[in-house]
Amino acid sequence: MKRVAILGSSGSIGVTTLRVIKQYPGEFKLEALAVNKNIESLKRQAAEFKPGKIAVGDEEAGKKINKIGGRDIYYGIEGLNRIASDKDVDIVVIGLSGSAALHPLLSAIRAGKHIALANKEALVMAGSIIMDELKKSKARLIPVDSEQSAIFQCLEGKEQDELRRLYLTASGGALYDVALKDFKYLNKKDILNHPRWKMGRKITVDSATLMNKGLEVIEASWLFDVEVRNIEVLIHRQAIIHSMVEFVDGSVLAQLGVTDMSLPIQYALTYPRRLSNPKNHLDFFSIESLTFDKVDNKKFPCLDFAYQAARDAGTAPAVMNAVNEEAVSAFLDQRIGFTLIPDIIEKIMSKHKTFKNPNLPAILEADTWARQEARELIARLVKTSNQ
Amino acid sequence: MKRVAILGSSGSIGVTTLRVIKQYPGEFKLEALAVNKNIESLKRQAAEFKPGKIAVGDEEAGKKINKIGGRDIYYGIEGLNRIASDKDVDIVVIGLSGSAALHPLLSAIRAGKHIALANKEALVMAGSIIMDELKKSKARLIPVDSEQSAIFQCLEGKEQDELRRLYLTASGGALYDVALKDFKYLNKKDILNHPRWKMGRKITVDSATLMNKGLEVIEASWLFDVEVRNIEVLIHRQAIIHSMVEFVDGSVLAQLGVTDMSLPIQYALTYPRRLSNPKNHLDFFSIESLTFDKVDNKKFPCLDFAYQAARDAGTAPAVMNAVNEEAVSAFLDQRIGFTLIPDIIEKIMSKHKTFKNPNLPAILEADTWARQEARELIARLVKTSNQ
Repeated sequence: MKRVAILGSSGSIGVTTLRVIKQYPGEFKLEALAVNKNIESLKRQAAEFKPGKIAVGDEEAGKKINKIGGRDIYYGIEGLNRIASDKDVDIVVIGLSGSAALHPLLSAIRAGKHIALANKEALVMAGSIIMDELKKSKARLIPVDSEQSAIFQCLEGKEQDELRRLYLTASGGALYDVALKDFKYLNKKDILNHPRWKMGRKITVDSATLMNKGLEVIEASWLFDVEVRNIEVLIHRQAIIHSMVEFVDGSVLAQLGVTDMSLPIQYALTYPRRLSNPKNHLDFFSIESLTFDKVDNKKFPCLDFAYQAARDAGTAPAVMNAVNEEAVSAFLDQRIGFTLIPDIIEKIMSKHKTFKNPNLPAILEADTWARQEARELIARLVKTSNQ
Repeated sequence: MKRVAILGSSGSIGVTTLRVIKQYPGEFKLEALAVNKNIESLKRQAAEFKPGKIAVGDEEAGKKINKIGGRDIYYGIEGLNRIASDKDVDIVVIGLSGSAALHPLLSAIRAGKHIALANKEALVMAGSIIMDELKKSKARLIPVDSEQSAIFQCLEGKEQDELRRLYLTASGGALYDVALKDFKYLNKKDILNHPRWKMGRKITVDSATLMNKGLEVIEASWLFDVEVRNIEVLIHRQAIIHSMVEFVDGSVLAQLGVTDMSLPIQYALTYPRRLSNPKNHLDFFSIESLTFDKVDNKKFPCLDFAYQAARDAGTAPAVMNAVNEEAVSAFLDQRIGFTLIPDIIEKIMSKHKTFKNPNLPAILEADTWARQEARELIARLVKTSNQ
C-alpha cells in the first residue's frame, strides 16, 4: 500500500487525485494533505480521509486555525516542505499552482520520493536545478499534465538518443475561434470558459493566451532533455491526442485518451504499473475527426515568448513566468484587461538582463525583481485607465 | 554489419528491403536472395548486389537455370529452407506471399535468426506451431506489416498483462466507396487500384475484400497473445495511424507515419535500434483530418470469416486461408468474378470439420483438402458461367 501526500488538495488536481485514491482502496492510503489557503476544503477533506499530517502553505491562515480534527497543522513553506519529505510518505502529488511548488518539489526530490508533478512553473523557473537534484537522488518525477504524461508514456522503454522531435498538442483554449480584433472585448467569464478541460483559474487563463503551452514547451525540454527547437506545438481542437513523439526513423508514437485528468493522475500514481480502469475508454466511433493546425502567433504571442525565454535560458524563463503569474492574477482580479497580459510580459522580459547559469538564490531574486516590476507596471496601467 | 537474406526479393517487400539496405551500406550486407519464380528480377538483383547464395522456390524454374553469375542455385522448398537457416545469415526477411512462407519461416526460427516477417499467411495457418517453435528458440520475430509493426512499436517496453485491446486500422481498400450492388461490375483493374498502399497483387485483392484485415486479426492474436474478441478493426481512410493499443487504464498508444513500407521494413531490420532516416517525416499540417469508421460487414463478409475461423481455431484458419488463396488466384486469372471470392470461402469453411490442436501434418492436410475443394468448386462455377 502506497502512502500518498497531496500538496494542493483543494485544487482541481488535488480533488481528482482524491477521487483516484478512493477508487483503489487497497492500493493507496492518504497520509498527508496540504493546501495553500483553502481551509474549508481542507477541513472537509481531512474529515473524510483522516490523513496523519496536515499543512497549510499560507502562514497567516495556517497559524490562525492551529488544529484540524485534533491534529497539529504544519504551516508556511516549511510546513509544505515537511509534508513533501515526510518519512511516512511514498508518493508526493504536487498539485500546487505557480511558483509556490518550487520548494516543496525540491524537498520531495531530496527525500527521494515518487513524485507526481502537476505543477509546471517550478520546472520553468528552475529546471536546471531541479534536474540536477533529481540526478543526485533516487526520486522519480512522473508528469501529471496530460501532454507531458503522453510524451512520458510514448517514451517509456525507448532510447533517448532515438528521439527526433516532440509534438505538444494544444486544444486551442477558449479563444481559438475568436478574432484578434475582438480580444479587447473579452471578460473574465469568456476566458474561464475552456472548451475541453475543467481546470483551475490560472491555468485556464494561461490556456487562453497559450502561455500554458509555452510553459509546457519549457517543461518538456527539461523533462525529456530535448531542445525547444525540436518541440513543436500543434493545435488539435479535439484534445484526443494528448501529445506525440517522433523518432529518428520518422516513426511517430502518440498517446490518446478521454479528456479526463484522472487518467494521467492515476498513471503517475501507479507508474511503472497500470491499474485497470474500466470507466476510462475512448470510443473511436464517437470521434468525428482529428485535426491539426498551426498556431496563430499574432493572436497568441505568449507562445513565442516562451520559446524566446527558453533560448535565452538562465533567469529568463523565471522572469517570464513571474510576470505572467502577476499579470494573470491582475486580470483575474479584474484590474487589467485580457490583452494587457502579453504586453506586460513582453515589456518586462525585454527589460530583464538575463543572468546565465543562475543558482537558486539568483533565480528567486530574478523572480522577485520581475514581480516587483510587473506590479508597478500594472499599478501604472490601472491608474492610467482610471483617469 | 548484419548479413541479410531476403526470401521473396522480387516482390514489393523484397524490392523495398533492397532499397533500405542500399541506404545503409555500413549497416547491412546482402548475403542471400530467393524468389519464388521471377528469374528475371533475380538475375538483375544478383548482378547488382552479388549475394553469396541464391535460391528459387519453384523447383522447375530453379532446376532449369542451374546457375546465376557463376553461383549454384538452391531450389525448391529445401532451397528456401537452406537460405533461411544459412549460417552466414543474421537477418531473414520473409517477403514471400501466401502459404509458401511457412516452411522457410520455421527453418529460420529453428536456426535462431532475427526474422523480419512480412508474410501473414504462415501465422494464420500454423500460429500455434510457429509460436511454440519461437519459444524454444533464440529467434526474434519482428513484424513488417505496417499494422503489426505499429502494435509492436506501441507495446515495446510495456507489460503484456496491461494490454486491454488492439485496434487494427484499415484504409478500407479499393471498394470502400463502392456500393455493394455495384460489386458485380468490378473487374481486376478496379480491384488492383489500391488508394493508399502500393503492394503485391494478392494482398491488394485481400485489401479489397478486407480478408487482408481478417488475416491480420488472426496474425495479431498470435504475435501479441491477444484473443480476437479484444482486437477491433477501425476503418481509417487516411492510413496515417497504422494501428493502436489500448491499455487496462484506458490509455491508448498509436503509431503514425508516412504511408511507405520502407519505415516498418527498416525498423524490423534495425530492431531494437532505430536508424536516422531524414526522408521519412510526417507533416501534420498536410493532414486534413483523421477519421474512424465501422466496417460494413455486409459489404465485407471476409472479415467476419476470419473472426469465425479464429474462434473455431484448430485447422479452421488454415482452411480459410487456403480457400482464399485459391479464390483470389482464380479471380486474378479472370476465371471468376470478384463477388464469388467470399461465397467460395464461406461454402468450404462451412463444409470443413475443424480439427482441434492439429500438428503440422494435420494443418497441411487441411490446407490440401481445402485447396482441392476450392479448385473443384471454382471449376464447377467456371463451367456453369460458360454454359
